[in-house]
Amino acid sequence: MRKLKYYVAVSVDNFIAHEDGSWDGFLTEGEAVTDYLESLKTWFDAVLMGRKTYEIALKVGVTNPYSYLKQYVFSRTMKESPDENVELVSENIVEFVRKLKNETGKDIYLCGGADLATMLFSENLIDEIILKLNPVLLGSGIPLFSGLIKQTALELTDSKIYKNGVVLLFYRVKKMEQI
Amino acid sequence: MRKLKYYVAVSVDNFIAHEDGSWDGFLTEGEAVTDYLESLKTWFDAVLMGRKTYEIALKVGVTNPYSYLKQYVFSRTMKESPDENVELVSENIVEFVRKLKNETGKDIYLCGGADLATMLFSENLIDEIILKLNPVLLGSGIPLFSGLIKQTALELTDSKIYKNGVVLLFYRVKKMEQI
Repeated sequence: MRKLKYYVAVSVDNFIAHEDGSWDGFLTEGEAVTDYLESLKTWFDAVLMGRKTYEIALKVGVTNPYSYLKQYVFSRTMKESPDENVELVSENIVEFVRKLKNETGKDIYLCGGADLATMLFSENLIDEIILKLNPVLLGSGIPLFSGLIKQTALELTDSKIYKNGVVLLFYRVKKMEQI
Repeated sequence: MRKLKYYVAVSVDNFIAHEDGSWDGFLTEGEAVTDYLESLKTWFDAVLMGRKTYEIALKVGVTNPYSYLKQYVFSRTMKESPDENVELVSENIVEFVRKLKNETGKDIYLCGGADLATMLFSENLIDEIILKLNPVLLGSGIPLFSGLIKQTALELTDSKIYKNGVVLLFYRVKKMEQI
């Protein structure tokens, strides 16, 4: 089965962005960014985005943010996708992702946001969490998960410390049946 | 000047404890714990506790939790300290900590909680944040800081990865005048 990996930049106080979706304070240059872009192409062939996450790209005129991946945006309110390369999924989101994971292919990249991550985590669909921990306290913002999730053990499977202070942490989600 | 270091165990989703102050899910054995206990005695000669943090010890009958350190508990509601080894500070908390930092001695350990940390951070009194990142998502609980703080850059000065998946991260708080 393909794995679903929530790979996201986060502050030391666990915010993935400011309230408005911007991310000033996060480091946007350096080896961590190069590694990230390279890994997207190597590990994945599909990406899942929540509507608000996709709209951050739309705001700056980008309708096709991950052109090298099959792109899905999840929204109950959006009427149609503004780009033929991005497939809109409006109904049965959980079932859609479950089916997608059962198809053949590389692993699936969940780039955000917190609402979609909370929904999919609660359905035991997220297999790994990869945190790009930035050396900053945002003070407020959008947290890693927007809603309550159940207490869950993780396994640290890999890590990398970058010169600029970014810490990359790879966690496997220990699902109930595996503990 | 003595440094004030906020050294605290935290989950991957940034909670220092469950809502009731308990911390099941955090790893309480292994090299990370041995290192922690050793470092308390080596680096510090004083500890600051918020009232709620101290009460977690009191609940299990411990009135003198850090007997090898000079202990201060901060509370506006507590009438007197239940232990002669713990000094109650009820007024002018910020000024008290500022003076303490100017005295001679080893560095000062801020063990929590989130309310006291937020107050002292907002007054630029916290010099380092040391996170003992436990491989668990608590899902809800008491966050690293309980109130809003301003966006603040950090510098990763050291780190250690333990076999059991605990990640120890040392951050220097970049204060405005130092950036």
